[in-house]
Amino acid sequence: MGDIDNRIAKLGINLPDAQAPIANYVPSVRTGNLVYLSGLGPAARQDGSVPNGKLGLDLNTEQGYEAARLVGINILARIKESVGGDFSKVKRIVKILSMVNSTADFTDHPQVANGCSDLMVEVFGNNGKHARSAVGMANLPGNIPVEIEAIVEVSS
Amino acid sequence: MGDIDNRIAKLGINLPDAQAPIANYVPSVRTGNLVYLSGLGPAARQDGSVPNGKLGLDLNTEQGYEAARLVGINILARIKESVGGDFSKVKRIVKILSMVNSTADFTDHPQVANGCSDLMVEVFGNNGKHARSAVGMANLPGNIPVEIEAIVEVSS
Amino acid sequence: MGDIDNRIAKLGINLPDAQAPIANYVPSVRTGNLVYLSGLGPAARQDGSVPNGKLGLDLNTEQGYEAARLVGINILARIKESVGGDFSKVKRIVKILSMVNSTADFTDHPQVANGCSDLMVEVFGNNGKHARSAVGMANLPGNIPVEIEAIVEVSS
Repeated sequence: MGDIDNRIAKLGINLPDAQAPIANYVPSVRTGNLVYLSGLGPAARQDGSVPNGKLGLDLNTEQGYEAARLVGINILARIKESVGGDFSKVKRIVKILSMVNSTADFTDHPQVANGCSDLMVEVFGNNGKHARSAVGMANLPGNIPVEIEAIVEVSS
Repeated sequence: MGDIDNRIAKLGINLPDAQAPIANYVPSVRTGNLVYLSGLGPAARQDGSVPNGKLGLDLNTEQGYEAARLVGINILARIKESVGGDFSKVKRIVKILSMVNSTADFTDHPQVANGCSDLMVEVFGNNGKHARSAVGMANLPGNIPVEIEAIVEVSS
Repeated sequence: MGDIDNRIAKLGINLPDAQAPIANYVPSVRTGNLVYLSGLGPAARQDGSVPNGKLGLDLNTEQGYEAARLVGINILARIKESVGGDFSKVKRIVKILSMVNSTADFTDHPQVANGCSDLMVEVFGNNGKHARSAVGMANLPGNIPVEIEAIVEVSS
């Protein structure tokens, strides 16, 4: 078990199976040294429940942060899948687009998105520090609170 | 006429002229082996009409699927233009961002986005399978139902 | 002072300090010859004020254009920072995603986004011509009117 796997285990995270796409696309595509991950929603909590709903209506900022962290867990699972199980091939989390299911009045997208961004830095250290946008969507598939897509640089 | 052109013709699709940008930007930019396509709206139907309006208000999911397929036709036209008319230079549809004009309640973005994704796979086969996000926007230029941007890998 | 700096000065623009990220992410990440810039909001006007609010509710299209131009000024500052102060290393503005804080009825996103796009072309000439999407968001961090992320090709 590598360093990154150890760090994930120490955070008390059990990586789920990589979430399967829910439509006609693939989990990730590699071109050159970049892996493009399809947008992901939150993983289930330990008790099997999954956060759902809109920020500013059904969920507050703190609940949104938790949801974004659960998206981050799905991202970790999919990154691991994309590098054949070997996290040491991850060179950098390059870019994240954090899309938050928001009312017209909700404006705390950065605080929500930090749930995923913090996890990337906890797990990958400096290599987890990424460029990012965090923005509010009219809605998301199945009314999930957060969907995040990522670009990851991997070793050749 | 190449394989891909044949496949497009067999699908009964007449590629339109590549849609011109409606503002101060260019249709696509190549950097290395990647071509970034600007966001596109739907092509006209055979009868000249163009779908318009918001999902969850003006259009249902099935109509959204058709609109996304029409966006896919514009994407094919622009890809062809970007490779100098030679589809055999297309190596992979890498990434698609499907942005759906949605009410605050509409949640079937993946089913809408499949209209474009299915077309990419019908035309390019395995090379058409892409990473994707499908999300809901507050609105889109000119109230079009779907806008899609794409990243395509081409041969050097 | 290089050509690009001169052009910026002739436009009457004083580049601000590069805007610091407001959460746990970094201003930009370089991978290969591409620099991914995190999403940016508007720079302050000369008088220190900063545009705020939603297009279609608080701001009209012309005010949105001004806000997008102010975002462009922040983008210039951050690009300069990312190339160690030497604009001659900028080869191309590759891609821009212009995200406009919009009511459900606002549809002039391209006209708003031109505020930034025009500035890129004024400053970088042909190298400033980019692929682009311009779309409407439910809201944005702190209720800013426009957030823009960019991908820039730099020399190696």
